[in-house]
Amino acid sequence: MTGKKKIVLAFSGGLDTTYCAIYLSKDHGEVHTVTVNTGGFDEKELEEIEKRSKSLGAVSHKTIDATHDFYHKAIKYLIAGNVLKNNTYPLSVSAERVFQATAIAKYANEVGADAIAHGSTGAGNDQVRFDMIFNILCPEKEIITPIRDMKLSREEEIQFLIDNGVSGNWEKALYSINQGLWGTSVGGKETLTSDKYLPEEAFPSQLQEKKEETIEIEFIKGEPAALNKSKLDPVTCILRLGDISSSYAIGRDIHIGDTIIGIKGRVGFEASAPLILIKAHHALEKHVLAKNQLFLKDQVALTYGNLLHEGHYLDPVMRDIEAFFESTQQHVTGKVKVRLAPYRFYIEGIESPNDLMQSKFGKYGEMNSSWSGEDVKGFAKIFGNQNMIYHKVHQDG
Amino acid sequence: MTGKKKIVLAFSGGLDTTYCAIYLSKDHGEVHTVTVNTGGFDEKELEEIEKRSKSLGAVSHKTIDATHDFYHKAIKYLIAGNVLKNNTYPLSVSAERVFQATAIAKYANEVGADAIAHGSTGAGNDQVRFDMIFNILCPEKEIITPIRDMKLSREEEIQFLIDNGVSGNWEKALYSINQGLWGTSVGGKETLTSDKYLPEEAFPSQLQEKKEETIEIEFIKGEPAALNKSKLDPVTCILRLGDISSSYAIGRDIHIGDTIIGIKGRVGFEASAPLILIKAHHALEKHVLAKNQLFLKDQVALTYGNLLHEGHYLDPVMRDIEAFFESTQQHVTGKVKVRLAPYRFYIEGIESPNDLMQSKFGKYGEMNSSWSGEDVKGFAKIFGNQNMIYHKVHQDG
Amino acid sequence: MTGKKKIVLAFSGGLDTTYCAIYLSKDHGEVHTVTVNTGGFDEKELEEIEKRSKSLGAVSHKTIDATHDFYHKAIKYLIAGNVLKNNTYPLSVSAERVFQATAIAKYANEVGADAIAHGSTGAGNDQVRFDMIFNILCPEKEIITPIRDMKLSREEEIQFLIDNGVSGNWEKALYSINQGLWGTSVGGKETLTSDKYLPEEAFPSQLQEKKEETIEIEFIKGEPAALNKSKLDPVTCILRLGDISSSYAIGRDIHIGDTIIGIKGRVGFEASAPLILIKAHHALEKHVLAKNQLFLKDQVALTYGNLLHEGHYLDPVMRDIEAFFESTQQHVTGKVKVRLAPYRFYIEGIESPNDLMQSKFGKYGEMNSSWSGEDVKGFAKIFGNQNMIYHKVHQDG
Amino acid sequence: MTGKKKIVLAFSGGLDTTYCAIYLSKDHGEVHTVTVNTGGFDEKELEEIEKRSKSLGAVSHKTIDATHDFYHKAIKYLIAGNVLKNNTYPLSVSAERVFQATAIAKYANEVGADAIAHGSTGAGNDQVRFDMIFNILCPEKEIITPIRDMKLSREEEIQFLIDNGVSGNWEKALYSINQGLWGTSVGGKETLTSDKYLPEEAFPSQLQEKKEETIEIEFIKGEPAALNKSKLDPVTCILRLGDISSSYAIGRDIHIGDTIIGIKGRVGFEASAPLILIKAHHALEKHVLAKNQLFLKDQVALTYGNLLHEGHYLDPVMRDIEAFFESTQQHVTGKVKVRLAPYRFYIEGIESPNDLMQSKFGKYGEMNSSWSGEDVKGFAKIFGNQNMIYHKVHQDG
Repeated sequence: MTGKKKIVLAFSGGLDTTYCAIYLSKDHGEVHTVTVNTGGFDEKELEEIEKRSKSLGAVSHKTIDATHDFYHKAIKYLIAGNVLKNNTYPLSVSAERVFQATAIAKYANEVGADAIAHGSTGAGNDQVRFDMIFNILCPEKEIITPIRDMKLSREEEIQFLIDNGVSGNWEKALYSINQGLWGTSVGGKETLTSDKYLPEEAFPSQLQEKKEETIEIEFIKGEPAALNKSKLDPVTCILRLGDISSSYAIGRDIHIGDTIIGIKGRVGFEASAPLILIKAHHALEKHVLAKNQLFLKDQVALTYGNLLHEGHYLDPVMRDIEAFFESTQQHVTGKVKVRLAPYRFYIEGIESPNDLMQSKFGKYGEMNSSWSGEDVKGFAKIFGNQNMIYHKVHQDG
Repeated sequence: MTGKKKIVLAFSGGLDTTYCAIYLSKDHGEVHTVTVNTGGFDEKELEEIEKRSKSLGAVSHKTIDATHDFYHKAIKYLIAGNVLKNNTYPLSVSAERVFQATAIAKYANEVGADAIAHGSTGAGNDQVRFDMIFNILCPEKEIITPIRDMKLSREEEIQFLIDNGVSGNWEKALYSINQGLWGTSVGGKETLTSDKYLPEEAFPSQLQEKKEETIEIEFIKGEPAALNKSKLDPVTCILRLGDISSSYAIGRDIHIGDTIIGIKGRVGFEASAPLILIKAHHALEKHVLAKNQLFLKDQVALTYGNLLHEGHYLDPVMRDIEAFFESTQQHVTGKVKVRLAPYRFYIEGIESPNDLMQSKFGKYGEMNSSWSGEDVKGFAKIFGNQNMIYHKVHQDG
Repeated sequence: MTGKKKIVLAFSGGLDTTYCAIYLSKDHGEVHTVTVNTGGFDEKELEEIEKRSKSLGAVSHKTIDATHDFYHKAIKYLIAGNVLKNNTYPLSVSAERVFQATAIAKYANEVGADAIAHGSTGAGNDQVRFDMIFNILCPEKEIITPIRDMKLSREEEIQFLIDNGVSGNWEKALYSINQGLWGTSVGGKETLTSDKYLPEEAFPSQLQEKKEETIEIEFIKGEPAALNKSKLDPVTCILRLGDISSSYAIGRDIHIGDTIIGIKGRVGFEASAPLILIKAHHALEKHVLAKNQLFLKDQVALTYGNLLHEGHYLDPVMRDIEAFFESTQQHVTGKVKVRLAPYRFYIEGIESPNDLMQSKFGKYGEMNSSWSGEDVKGFAKIFGNQNMIYHKVHQDG
Repeated sequence: MTGKKKIVLAFSGGLDTTYCAIYLSKDHGEVHTVTVNTGGFDEKELEEIEKRSKSLGAVSHKTIDATHDFYHKAIKYLIAGNVLKNNTYPLSVSAERVFQATAIAKYANEVGADAIAHGSTGAGNDQVRFDMIFNILCPEKEIITPIRDMKLSREEEIQFLIDNGVSGNWEKALYSINQGLWGTSVGGKETLTSDKYLPEEAFPSQLQEKKEETIEIEFIKGEPAALNKSKLDPVTCILRLGDISSSYAIGRDIHIGDTIIGIKGRVGFEASAPLILIKAHHALEKHVLAKNQLFLKDQVALTYGNLLHEGHYLDPVMRDIEAFFESTQQHVTGKVKVRLAPYRFYIEGIESPNDLMQSKFGKYGEMNSSWSGEDVKGFAKIFGNQNMIYHKVHQDG
């Protein structure tokens, strides 16, 4: 090695990272591109990314499949916590970025890179997520972000590519699409305003099926384990469910969120499988968990979702929350029937050996042998005792 | 007055309270019936209830309209807190009962009653809510609950009425329906199981409209203030919105909840106006509130919802939470466009002078003048500093 | 067996349970007494209790040592959570009762008892804790509580004992003392008022040492593991520490708490070892845990303490919180120096391989190589960005 | 005006700000010094600061008394929330800085300054607090921080002053002392380690009194209103209490905290009046607030303390929390007796018309007329009902 700086570049083959590959190869060192798949790329796309990398002068290219890692280290807990940011958004992209960054940091450590480069601009969440993970996992490595540092415009990047003989269709798509295992984000045009919704055609999946159907999802200890009675590993379960549900155009919405850098951002998304899984899982939990579990889970999940969103996945408290979630999921086993209809779905019901709603313990609205009206009378008296005293004190006063 | 016990009876004209009116009049004292309307009865129904009361031997009958009270003392805060129990149920019946009980307790105090009677069985939530409010607001009055105390079956009650010459159609409806301003609950048959959904016809409103439409709801300081540009008081706004949205069969679901007495209960509901208002309000909040407000509101609202559900409306902490909510709503002013479609709705967007997402402060994904990429770089380094140290310590160890 | 009812009686040898032993033996069935030691009795006392039991007509007596169980299933987590009820009280008695009740319930199941009896009155917390544990662990067994049921006064009980030829010194002590591994409660006279403190002599331990000394407590994964460099099992560590610290009259205070039944109660206590261990443990945690861990632990611990206090130890959420605590304690290893002085102590400092305060990562108040002033400038700008926007919006408005 | 830059400099007269005054006056513009007193300076000190400012070439000097502002906008809520960071530290300096920064920003706006300068280094919390407040309240003004920007060492600063003919005793004190209304911080030597405590003489107040005494503090709606029966405004009450209690050497401790920039920092402090007021106030609250109020206050106060510590005083959620606190304090009125002894204090008891512990509502441990043992039996059964079911389900399974 000639003392040339060894740069690992997070590479997706898009405009920004294509720019970086050429720019960095030319003057800054030897560029080793790496693409981390968290469910958004298929085989063919990955091959094309590899081909493109080589055509741009990268010394090596590495493809890392982090899909299962992503599931087992994050999605599993997002399901356990029924995590929907602002009660809407399954954190599709937020979570993914962290796993891409982690895989890249580890790869950079393995190959002994001097620097890590990424194509983020200075305006979004991803730059913070990437920077933070790299600062934590390889604090001694330089972080290079040409687009951010030089405040490059899209036009400047394209001109540079043309000047360097790189062909490609760089026409700006109307919407910027970001696909992963846990959902697809759709940004552009209407999402830059506060008052407009995305048009039908902006969403990646279009309505195909017209007939309603009921599907069955089985959970074992809180994890998806079967779809329509076929046992599947969780990742496959999510993908298959997505195939079915996206044909109903289910799971679309717009999320208005607080970016890590303090501004408000609006982004459309389509995430039929994540939304169905979370709602199905939650329905099951309502039947098998005690009320104090449901209550505390809700509170803790708010923290988990926020920290993950803000790039704090490596904070040790996340491991502690995961241990909590793990414990809560021991009995979250059962089957959930979900009705799919165009643009919507609902939970029909659940079946579980751990269902706490069992007629032998009393039916809601009907008398039961294990307690009497007298017991409830006493309960109500004592349950409201402090407030009785409180009102008495302040009425007297 | 001959020393006869003066009993105020919470009266709806249904089987249970009809039984109580006769039973108590015969042997226990003079019965004063009272019906509290929280939005579920229309004029004609209230007149019929009054007529029935008189035919049963009640000494007096009183109709109290608590609808506006219900809005100003509870619904307003349920909107402010975006309260959905278990992320599903707008607490329709739970909240209502408390206001009925409170109005009854005050009435009983006014007329100097010796006792308060209600028709609850020993199996549900309502007995606890009624008992608790009465114990707190009139602890010295006896509470009489014949159905609960004598563990009467439906058949026994009907026989008693026949024996006492009371006519009526007491055939059990397939579903027990409970209507109020903040939603209608539907219980029976399928809701007694864990795995079945209610059939289309069980829901009170049936799909009528087929054409989608966009409506506009205006909020002022967190309260609904106008519908489609007509200024309305909040109660009317809820009612009108319900008229429109229920024709789309929007807002149906099944809630699986923890009853106050510890068993799980499942109940269907239809609450199109509450669900639309909460989602619209929440969308507006996401644009106008700071992230720490959104986060803390979510946590505090969980507590508010749970305490209200469990009948603790009179707990002084509820007033404290309301003061908190009130403060958070100062800037929650703006218009929300909602798209209605058969069985579903979604938020199209909002418009507010307090919108924090304004392009002059930076667009998500685009560079901005008020901070630089360098600033964000520094931010990311410091934001992840503790975890950098943590990982360094434990890697070294 | 002759069909006589088999009654397991929770027995301490005091007035109430002595009454129960005789009363139940006479007319109600065969009485099997059981004494559960959670650290409050020594060998000799246990022998005397056994002797007394036999003299009262009990068919059998069983002594169960639950001290280690109590530590491993509760105290360990009370330390992990730094649990002080209302920031004052280490939950000494609350926690203990649960373990006594659990051991008794299991014993009753083992011996196939028909009923469980306890000597609680109708006025305190313990009746609820006992009843709840028994209802949960052996719901089919009858619970017998003669003192509560017959509303017996102290005088009536004593007369009954005299009538039945039972000797004993039943003179009421000025203070009722309740000793256990996790502290001693002291109730009576002044604690029945709101404005008076207990006199010096009411506390079980009196000041003996006058010379200050520094002791060292070692924690391994959050558990006490050594005292002054002697490796000890946790229970012995607590006991030895108590021997030393109680001679300084440390750890006294008065707790004003909310009883489970809604009234306020005041109770003095002496708990030098618990308070020192919690403060020492917390000091260590502040050095080795990340700030998000400290923050979430505080919130979750409030819930753990409250649920334990109210007798909900068997709620499954408690196991979930324990899993959370367990995870947080992985690095809580180190030594804490504590200064003991008459009536008070303070933490001198800690030493831990996991200490996050290490000069190589930057000293507070001194510049550091891993970040620059420029970084912090950028951080401050972005960290306050949303509030900048917020104030701009509302200033403009 | 000649176009010279108008710089407002936060000025304390110490080494760093003296450097800034000269440095900025020489080359950068006209310097207007401002000193904000939040209780740490007396008249004489303020006069000397003013004299020094003028001698250094400042064009003008302004003294702002923010003490009462500091009380009414922060301390009042720190008392209401019983805020102790990490259960130890009354946030003495953290809170103060925010009010100094706010007063300076307002002053800079008033005088139409172009820039604000402060003497912070790049290593502590204060730089972030100052920067954030300035960025929010006057985002268009430049922030100048010479010491941080030029990474100046103490020695370099002193040499510069000598070169510029400024006399002064710049010998580094062993401990850096920071005094304010809400406590005094003490940093240096031992606080730079993890394992050593500050020596007796490092603390500003030394033990003088030897005789114990009982004092009485009266609170009205949560605010200190009288000391030993003398009605006082809250600021005076804090000062007088401090005079008495500091002679007992009460209120010393070491706080180990998480700095805003992520490192751990250790700082000694002496804060006798804050600690006594918080403990006295909390004792009163335990008597007059309902348990749900106490519980939620604890949770919300954690957030308030953390946000204030991290400089987020201007976050709108702080106003919302203050509204919550305000509501909770309506009945926190009464007298608290506090026993002062050398190095320690304890609460003797309280007296309040709002005391919920009143014997007419039942004494802890004694039977009461408003409920029966039967009521409690029923309560315990229902209160534990869900866990009974839970254990039954999982035992059967």
